[in-house]
Amino acid sequence: MLIDKNLSTPLYIQLYENMRKLIENGSFKEGEKLPSIRSLANKLEVNNITVVNAYKLLEQEGYVFSVKGSGTYVRKISYALDPTFLENGDIEMMIDGVLPLSKNSINFASVSPTPEIFPIKEFKQALIEVLDRDKGMAFVYPEINGYEPFRESITYFLEENYDIKIDKDQIQVISGGQQGIDIITKALISQGDHIFVENPTYSGAISAFKSRGAKIIGIPIEEDGLNLDVFNEYINKYNPKFLYMMTNYQSPTTYSYSEEKKKKLLELSEKYGFYIIEDDFLTDLNYNAEEKTPLKSLDNLDQVIYIKSFSKIFMPGVRIGFMTVPRRLFKGIIRAKHTTDISSSGFLQRAFDLYLRKGYWKDHIKTIKKVYSEKYNTMVEELEKLNQYGIEFFQPYGGLSIWIKLPKDIDSVELYNECEENNVAIVPGKIFFIDDGVYSNYIRLSFGAVASEEIIHGIKVMENIIRKKYKVDNNKYLPFV
Amino acid sequence: MLIDKNLSTPLYIQLYENMRKLIENGSFKEGEKLPSIRSLANKLEVNNITVVNAYKLLEQEGYVFSVKGSGTYVRKISYALDPTFLENGDIEMMIDGVLPLSKNSINFASVSPTPEIFPIKEFKQALIEVLDRDKGMAFVYPEINGYEPFRESITYFLEENYDIKIDKDQIQVISGGQQGIDIITKALISQGDHIFVENPTYSGAISAFKSRGAKIIGIPIEEDGLNLDVFNEYINKYNPKFLYMMTNYQSPTTYSYSEEKKKKLLELSEKYGFYIIEDDFLTDLNYNAEEKTPLKSLDNLDQVIYIKSFSKIFMPGVRIGFMTVPRRLFKGIIRAKHTTDISSSGFLQRAFDLYLRKGYWKDHIKTIKKVYSEKYNTMVEELEKLNQYGIEFFQPYGGLSIWIKLPKDIDSVELYNECEENNVAIVPGKIFFIDDGVYSNYIRLSFGAVASEEIIHGIKVMENIIRKKYKVDNNKYLPFV
Repeated sequence: MLIDKNLSTPLYIQLYENMRKLIENGSFKEGEKLPSIRSLANKLEVNNITVVNAYKLLEQEGYVFSVKGSGTYVRKISYALDPTFLENGDIEMMIDGVLPLSKNSINFASVSPTPEIFPIKEFKQALIEVLDRDKGMAFVYPEINGYEPFRESITYFLEENYDIKIDKDQIQVISGGQQGIDIITKALISQGDHIFVENPTYSGAISAFKSRGAKIIGIPIEEDGLNLDVFNEYINKYNPKFLYMMTNYQSPTTYSYSEEKKKKLLELSEKYGFYIIEDDFLTDLNYNAEEKTPLKSLDNLDQVIYIKSFSKIFMPGVRIGFMTVPRRLFKGIIRAKHTTDISSSGFLQRAFDLYLRKGYWKDHIKTIKKVYSEKYNTMVEELEKLNQYGIEFFQPYGGLSIWIKLPKDIDSVELYNECEENNVAIVPGKIFFIDDGVYSNYIRLSFGAVASEEIIHGIKVMENIIRKKYKVDNNKYLPFV
Repeated sequence: MLIDKNLSTPLYIQLYENMRKLIENGSFKEGEKLPSIRSLANKLEVNNITVVNAYKLLEQEGYVFSVKGSGTYVRKISYALDPTFLENGDIEMMIDGVLPLSKNSINFASVSPTPEIFPIKEFKQALIEVLDRDKGMAFVYPEINGYEPFRESITYFLEENYDIKIDKDQIQVISGGQQGIDIITKALISQGDHIFVENPTYSGAISAFKSRGAKIIGIPIEEDGLNLDVFNEYINKYNPKFLYMMTNYQSPTTYSYSEEKKKKLLELSEKYGFYIIEDDFLTDLNYNAEEKTPLKSLDNLDQVIYIKSFSKIFMPGVRIGFMTVPRRLFKGIIRAKHTTDISSSGFLQRAFDLYLRKGYWKDHIKTIKKVYSEKYNTMVEELEKLNQYGIEFFQPYGGLSIWIKLPKDIDSVELYNECEENNVAIVPGKIFFIDDGVYSNYIRLSFGAVASEEIIHGIKVMENIIRKKYKVDNNKYLPFV
């Protein structure tokens, strides 16, 4: 059964493949010892080396592990969502709020809003009205680029909120911001192409770019936007397909671009002929008088592909967003969307369209800004108490997170682990850096998914952990308690 | 403005890029003549060859065209959905019913159902019940692999309908079948990997595979399934990552696998260690007593990744389907889903879950089978009248299409064009073949989107076209009229 000497496939490959299947289908259980090399070789009438090579392959592929002098054992098969296999990608899922934390955890990791502030009443009204109005038509395939009246609503939305004027034929409806990134990558990136990103940046975007073999060049981001000196140095060295960036309340740094840097960036894009992918998921959430606008508002030459996600400012479960597409790129984008998922749910597009047309948007934004700005103020207040331990942070006056610099001696991953043991979830900053070894002393705390009392309690827990670390490492600065 | 001699970028590239932008932003209009080479070279103080090279690049990229002895002109920019740019991908869109035909067309191209047979009443009830029951929770991010109770419903659905027993942790919810194909490709395919497909097959799958650089090997499909002789010959030559196939009412051929070939295929998959991607979108639609089951029903070793689409048997606009995933692959699949669109709409998953739990499914399938089988019978009856012109077709007794072989002398693309002129949309078979030059005498007619009277009228239109062609090419067989 395990090998067939009449086949042209090498015997050790056959043995490897059949053993693998026996492990996968549970014939060999987790922790079980495989037959010894000699006994299996005898039984199959093959050389020892055939079995050795097959076992080696199984070990390389993670199916078994060997214990010196004892034998070869079946490894535990890792399931998705198993917390013992937490890697960068899993933290990304935790951030999205899709990887469930234990019930009692205080979740500073997630930027997703909690359901209490969803405009359920108004959206339900829109959903029912669509069903009554459109009946079966609500569930046919919409156009690939999106339901036309919805694309029209979006053009009004863009003009009214951000002074962006664009034709409805340049709108591509997407199932959320991540899909926008994925589709652009599919349409524009070939193996080995260079792209520029802010460093640090959203790791979900990096995953999408990498999955198509893009070479990613990180450019440091500063409090007023990209470091343009580094940018200018690199632009002559590489010929990037595009720059991926977030203009306002960047993730994870919370920095926003100055008007000056926005203009310079557009000039550079024009001069060197690269597109700019602007990922906008938070522009609307300012908590002071200074209203932000997207880079797209200044873009006269259609250099900017503007991706708008509604997951953080509306409801994540709707899975509807849009992007603007330069005419020249439209055909490629629409094909990429088609091979990705044909089209986004027409029913939800129709409902969102009606929601916008009924004028609910402005009130909704006002409501959530009130809720978030209170939480923002609480968090800033609490964090200021940690200044005594050498902790610094930037005040964005908007968005859903605070980006925190720890004193050099405190490692963010250690802090993450100890917080987790105490049921507080934070995000170690290093997962956002392209070159993740270098920056180990940043963390991000988000307040989208926590109540004000949780903020106060959670930061107290953190303080206790930091105090101990600080005491050990910085004896002379030990604060009076 | 057009070039900057201080930059390290070659002058002709700069000129190309800036001219391109002027065309894209409309400074140069469609049909407008570009400045002559000499005049522009003089103005910019560069060599003629710089301008020549820049214009050549513009021409290569499709922005301009040159007229000998006259000059260089701006080409019309092609928009998506512009029918003059109809290519294979556009026909694929037409098949999905997302590329609108002119209002009076008879649409034999689309396999999508029409809204009259959608179970709107029952689904609306489920939607409203979910809103009342779950409120804001209906719109949070669901788990990446899917809303847990829905995954549970799916396991019952699989056992009850197809005798497939599988754990809910092996279900991945997707936004339709196309996304399933796209995610599997993302998780499994590296540049240059070989995969096997039935030839002919669904061109949307081919697009997804190609977009990741897979090398596609087509294996002829016969009335009872793949040609296993060719399969056996190729399996020793290539080492395919997987075989992509459709067990029942295959697209486009409408063929279904015999039990014997199903078993042989599973044996081969086991022996040679490749996965089978089973794309099931029509299994439920049999119109005779012979109920079909998926290949997955026989799969004891979890070799088959079973993709289930509900677009054709429920409603396309819901954009919810699922696939089963071998445990070993689950982590890769879940990551691919996450970088693709985070998760499918939780709201629609909850509603579909409730719809299934309320037991509406069986009645729905009964209803649509009745409607479709009537249309199927009408189409077969009408097509039999064309036998006199040498037309042959296979009777699948199920599904949504008929696969038709034309006499050698009638070219399917010519027929497609003439039918289109007469407002009848058909699909030329060649777009489904891997090696599309060879098979020019097949067409596919689908009856998902047409009423019975349209079938009768549409085939009459076709008959008139064919009769004329037949008369010209086969004078001696001219039938008496």
